[in-house]
Amino acid sequence: MAKRIERGVFLTENSPKIEGFAAVVGPKEGKGPLGEYFDEVIEDSHFGKDTWEKAESHFQLEAVSLAIKKSGLVKEDIDTIFSGDLINQCIGSAYGLRELEIPFLGLYGACSTMAEGLLLSTVITDSKAVNRAAAVTSSHFSTAERQFRFPLSYGGQRTPTSQWTCTASGAAVISREKGEIEIVGGCVGKITDMGISDINNMGSAMAPAAAETIKRYLEATSLKPEDFDYIVTGDLGIVGSKLAVEFLLKQGIDISQQHRDCGAMIFDPDEQDTHCGGSGCGCSGSVLCGYFLPQLVSGKAKNILFAATGALMSPMSLQQGESIPTISHLVHLRKG
Amino acid sequence: MAKRIERGVFLTENSPKIEGFAAVVGPKEGKGPLGEYFDEVIEDSHFGKDTWEKAESHFQLEAVSLAIKKSGLVKEDIDTIFSGDLINQCIGSAYGLRELEIPFLGLYGACSTMAEGLLLSTVITDSKAVNRAAAVTSSHFSTAERQFRFPLSYGGQRTPTSQWTCTASGAAVISREKGEIEIVGGCVGKITDMGISDINNMGSAMAPAAAETIKRYLEATSLKPEDFDYIVTGDLGIVGSKLAVEFLLKQGIDISQQHRDCGAMIFDPDEQDTHCGGSGCGCSGSVLCGYFLPQLVSGKAKNILFAATGALMSPMSLQQGESIPTISHLVHLRKG
Repeated sequence: MAKRIERGVFLTENSPKIEGFAAVVGPKEGKGPLGEYFDEVIEDSHFGKDTWEKAESHFQLEAVSLAIKKSGLVKEDIDTIFSGDLINQCIGSAYGLRELEIPFLGLYGACSTMAEGLLLSTVITDSKAVNRAAAVTSSHFSTAERQFRFPLSYGGQRTPTSQWTCTASGAAVISREKGEIEIVGGCVGKITDMGISDINNMGSAMAPAAAETIKRYLEATSLKPEDFDYIVTGDLGIVGSKLAVEFLLKQGIDISQQHRDCGAMIFDPDEQDTHCGGSGCGCSGSVLCGYFLPQLVSGKAKNILFAATGALMSPMSLQQGESIPTISHLVHLRKG
Repeated sequence: MAKRIERGVFLTENSPKIEGFAAVVGPKEGKGPLGEYFDEVIEDSHFGKDTWEKAESHFQLEAVSLAIKKSGLVKEDIDTIFSGDLINQCIGSAYGLRELEIPFLGLYGACSTMAEGLLLSTVITDSKAVNRAAAVTSSHFSTAERQFRFPLSYGGQRTPTSQWTCTASGAAVISREKGEIEIVGGCVGKITDMGISDINNMGSAMAPAAAETIKRYLEATSLKPEDFDYIVTGDLGIVGSKLAVEFLLKQGIDISQQHRDCGAMIFDPDEQDTHCGGSGCGCSGSVLCGYFLPQLVSGKAKNILFAATGALMSPMSLQQGESIPTISHLVHLRKG
């Protein structure tokens, strides 16, 4: 059973646990600064499939299958799975997970999906409606570029504030009983829109959402940035990260020491020509499951806030003159 | 706290309640056999907006606002809202609900979204993580046609098995404390794919998913079709409805007396040229909230199973030679 602290903020009572997790990435992510931390680097970004969309589905299937295996479980042990991605109608998830026959709850949280899936896995496990849930998400550079920006063969010039969609998937298994990482609480994000409409500056659009969610959780729980080893944002990238830290500082909350951003970490901008960093659901999914969760298991870190961020626009909404609504969901993770 | 019955099937312990609900539909739905039951019929399918997508967002905002008002509440009383729709990246939901500033959890369940939102609202309310949740969804004939089929101005001929996407939205407020309808249990659907790839025969593609979910819930809870006044499917339409009843009959479950289908009910196929019936997230959303929930409030019905169905393909996945994965989520509703 959970405990409501305030609107959208809750603490768990039974502390559901992360029993296992996995991160599977593509070749460019494998060559980045975090390359050694991922469970698998797939050198063929088609993953043996004839389309990028089918490849993305396969990244997701691979990450879930590995997370289940690393938990010492089989797919029948998972009562329900939460998943979503960026491709229209979330086909990365539906086709990727179809063969598993695990009761499936589809999400659309854009790049906040890993946090949304963890939050809902926490709630449904804590409620005792299920014994075990799983959360997974994915993105693929080539499926995202052609859908949100330009056909790859067009060779469009990328702007300085643009980010590079990661080819990656992260998955975690959440259990009532077993696991070395506890999920202590969560915060459901509010849609935040500061009027930015530049699809090549998503980090700046999403920064206020991250700041709002982190502030709301810290204030509701009376916790301080110093209570955490890391306060991790999803893919704000280099520009968006600075903005999020500044927004919070103006409101009297200094997270500059604890803050890390998955998008700013996954690539080397100088060596890899990725401008402001990584993005896509798979970015925060794979960096959480590849880099941060192992630190909780090993005890190098004791408390982590994970606030993934998503931009909820579509190419059509921008063509119709709209700005970019954004969101950030948060889970609080603790060494068990 | 909930009670897990088996994989994906649970009963609630505190029985969250539906405190209020509303259905808002477009002009064609208003002229159909259920026209008198909807809270509002909007005669302008643009709803005063300059695009259909913005109109769909506004239908969703209108339905939620009305459901909150009919519950005697204000938006600040809602701790979290679940929403999703069919438009790419679910912009109907994100832009529609942006101004409400209610903590937002985005779903993608295609036309099963109303049931998925009710199921997750039930879990999160029952877990005590929130006091009140809301579930909403929408669809719009004109946003769906141009995205999934043809531009309207093309004037494409519709096939006999095709369905007509409803311009409609349904919304419900779920509460720990108050309300005349109890949510007794739920069943999370499994992705089901029988190899159908005809986008104009979605009812047949979705029928096996509905049958699988209904069977699993009835067997897990030892309930029988006779325990229900209605066993309601989402938008299988006329052809899909017959198939779902037949599938279950072959497995020894006769729902022929209790079965109703929102898609088969919302239009008059002879008078309204809608072929196999209605479809779209807003179809089952509005028929549930406009027609079935009031029967539970008045006591005309005591027990209803609501199993909305969704098709999880995209135009691109079909172009890539894939078949249609489908899903059906279920909630069990009882007169309180």
